Amino acid sequence: MAATELMEKIVSLAKRRGFIYPSAEIYGGFRSTYDYGPLGAAMLRNVKGSWWRETVERRRDVVGIEASILSSPRIWEASGHLKNFTDPLVDCRSCKERWRADHIDGVCPNCGSTDLTEARAFNMMFRTFVGPVEDDASVAYLRPETAQGMFVNFANVLQTSRKKPPFGIAQMGKSFRNEITPGNFVFRTREFEQMEMEFFVPPEEAAKWFQYWYETRLAWYVNHGIAPEMLRLRHHDPDELSHYSAATVDIEFLFPWGWGELEGIANRTDFDLKAHQVASGVKLEYFDPTTNMSYTPFVIEPAAGATRAMMAFLIAAYREDEVGNEARVVLGLHPRIAPVQVAILPLMKKSPLVEVAASIFDDLSEFFLCDYDETQSIGRRYRRQDEIGTPVCVTVDYDSLEDASVTLRDRDSTSQIRVKISDLAPTISSQFESYSPKV
Amino acid sequence: MAATELMEKIVSLAKRRGFIYPSAEIYGGFRSTYDYGPLGAAMLRNVKGSWWRETVERRRDVVGIEASILSSPRIWEASGHLKNFTDPLVDCRSCKERWRADHIDGVCPNCGSTDLTEARAFNMMFRTFVGPVEDDASVAYLRPETAQGMFVNFANVLQTSRKKPPFGIAQMGKSFRNEITPGNFVFRTREFEQMEMEFFVPPEEAAKWFQYWYETRLAWYVNHGIAPEMLRLRHHDPDELSHYSAATVDIEFLFPWGWGELEGIANRTDFDLKAHQVASGVKLEYFDPTTNMSYTPFVIEPAAGATRAMMAFLIAAYREDEVGNEARVVLGLHPRIAPVQVAILPLMKKSPLVEVAASIFDDLSEFFLCDYDETQSIGRRYRRQDEIGTPVCVTVDYDSLEDASVTLRDRDSTSQIRVKISDLAPTISSQFESYSPKV
Repeated sequence: MAATELMEKIVSLAKRRGFIYPSAEIYGGFRSTYDYGPLGAAMLRNVKGSWWRETVERRRDVVGIEASILSSPRIWEASGHLKNFTDPLVDCRSCKERWRADHIDGVCPNCGSTDLTEARAFNMMFRTFVGPVEDDASVAYLRPETAQGMFVNFANVLQTSRKKPPFGIAQMGKSFRNEITPGNFVFRTREFEQMEMEFFVPPEEAAKWFQYWYETRLAWYVNHGIAPEMLRLRHHDPDELSHYSAATVDIEFLFPWGWGELEGIANRTDFDLKAHQVASGVKLEYFDPTTNMSYTPFVIEPAAGATRAMMAFLIAAYREDEVGNEARVVLGLHPRIAPVQVAILPLMKKSPLVEVAASIFDDLSEFFLCDYDETQSIGRRYRRQDEIGTPVCVTVDYDSLEDASVTLRDRDSTSQIRVKISDLAPTISSQFESYSPKV
Repeated sequence: MAATELMEKIVSLAKRRGFIYPSAEIYGGFRSTYDYGPLGAAMLRNVKGSWWRETVERRRDVVGIEASILSSPRIWEASGHLKNFTDPLVDCRSCKERWRADHIDGVCPNCGSTDLTEARAFNMMFRTFVGPVEDDASVAYLRPETAQGMFVNFANVLQTSRKKPPFGIAQMGKSFRNEITPGNFVFRTREFEQMEMEFFVPPEEAAKWFQYWYETRLAWYVNHGIAPEMLRLRHHDPDELSHYSAATVDIEFLFPWGWGELEGIANRTDFDLKAHQVASGVKLEYFDPTTNMSYTPFVIEPAAGATRAMMAFLIAAYREDEVGNEARVVLGLHPRIAPVQVAILPLMKKSPLVEVAASIFDDLSEFFLCDYDETQSIGRRYRRQDEIGTPVCVTVDYDSLEDASVTLRDRDSTSQIRVKISDLAPTISSQFESYSPKV
């Protein structure tokens, strides 16, 4: 399938089935922002939930925080964002349009004029005013990354959580960047969702943990159903590194338009803690009681985009095949991230089938994300569930009233087995646990 | 305990144990914003998770969405926020301070001058600019409520989710209001987290569903551990109703400073859908195939504050008692919302106790939020867990190496029982399921 065709199909499916809508669509949309519909919101929750569970809850060496989005200019002064987080912009003196200097070739793409201003640094942070007066003292920025929330809370977390290096502080949440050229659907948007973790380590262990984390994070994508050949690690060249980084590797995914970054893993050294220590006058070090010495930890940071990851999972899962000579669209999503994990379908929209199905919904929704659908033919309902990636369907038929059993139908193979209603939850759980992607 | 004393204790505990920190504290804080530390982030996730599970996932008649925070002025024009979402402000001509007109008595509280301007309407929405040019065409607002995200997506959700009234669209997330006088810790902050649901019903069923939802929501707080006498319903007088509301009832909690709103349940009528229909020109109605008629549904809205609810849960749970003639502080949190549900404690920081405890952490953290703590005496560790509301502690001692059992200690009664390691997960699960608050 051609790349543009695949993207069009994903965007159309996302809209049509309620994964992702253009924001404020009834008003013609709004500047490359997006809303996540019922399926998109559920899937995004799954992606984030799985990251949080593996990165925070299942580990003894990582804790989570949630810092505010409205943030002090002093944070961004110390971090270097006020000075460095910029794009070069030029104005066309003729038609007054504004462009990214590195995206045009000396000629205004709008009117063709070459009468352009010198490039000026345009800061990509969104600015607003807090309180009743709009002046310098009331400026606040929407955070352009969640990372700084971990650095400025380092001392507080160290003290209250009683952790010691190596340990991490993690955060998920919205960040905002005033991109001049957002694009590629939800790949680059001004409002997006991050999953970041700062892992504080003794400086001499930084190289070891850097490798540990990029391997761990790469495995996370594979374990959630992306084929290894769709992923690659790209180590940054020394001249490509950010000002704070001693080493960076990107986890890239083969998007329809080419390789694109899903996540960056960086060795941020002690740059941020030292910068905030200097700017705030508060000591941001760890006192090691075994050596009686204080030191500034190095930081290994895996920084992923949740919305971007979700998009990659959708693309990687999309396929078209045939079942009984009929074309079908399937999202081969891993059960952990599928927005509907179990669909419960009464064969007919009739009593008592619908009551039995509703009662199964009540039972199973304690353990799984469930959908209930009673409209149209069972074949069409299977297709609808295939198209949104539902791993299994439970069908209640007239035999169910006799044998207290239902049909359990598998998305990938379309095979069906008969299962006692009382065995449904453990049967489905064990299928999900042993799930391996069909590629 | 005096009200101010209780609040001081809650704020101090929140800071000291890592529930809630002042934001950017190393820079002296930032304008009444707060960061949620390891325990606060976990507890907030639990509160939101429980709301989402009960309001969305366990129901067949509600779906969830996640709309963007950066939002189009056209939304807020249609909703009435651009015009009506204001506070009256006056300026002091002498010292140039600015005040809420309804909070002062004709005299500047700063310099005592009576030379004040007329009151002007100050819009409480945060404004920013999207894209490279700051002009009228690039204005965006940070949403002051999540509700409008549901209204503008009504048609999309109706079409893609195949629901029909009565059905709901729910959303959780950050909202922003430029409050002139934030205060009472996290009770009123400029950045806060909402849990809102718009339930679309046939107009003639509005009264019934209004009552259904305020009863359901009141029960939610009680079921999560707040004593009924700490809660009340307050029906708004007709002259107190918002412009969109036919009936509103607040669920109020007895905060240390008095009754305060936790959640409002409103019958918003068809105000919002009609307003957006007029402004956008897009039909926002439901076509009922059984009657062949279209109509605009009425909306019942339970709108809760997640951060505010968390604060109420903390206050309601706080108590001081004595154990073995020693004073202790206990948070009697419901296990569903406790930030740590199980603490795993090796009696001594020695092999092989620590390895056994670590392996129990690995097993139990699949099902519960777990903490692992190996420092200081077991008595002190119990106190630390009591203070953060951990319902049960698992202690690994030398007998455990012989009998493959551990001590399971209950927070409320401090009673201890011996449990096989292999029975831990089901034993704890069943204790949590049958939990009833000690008040």
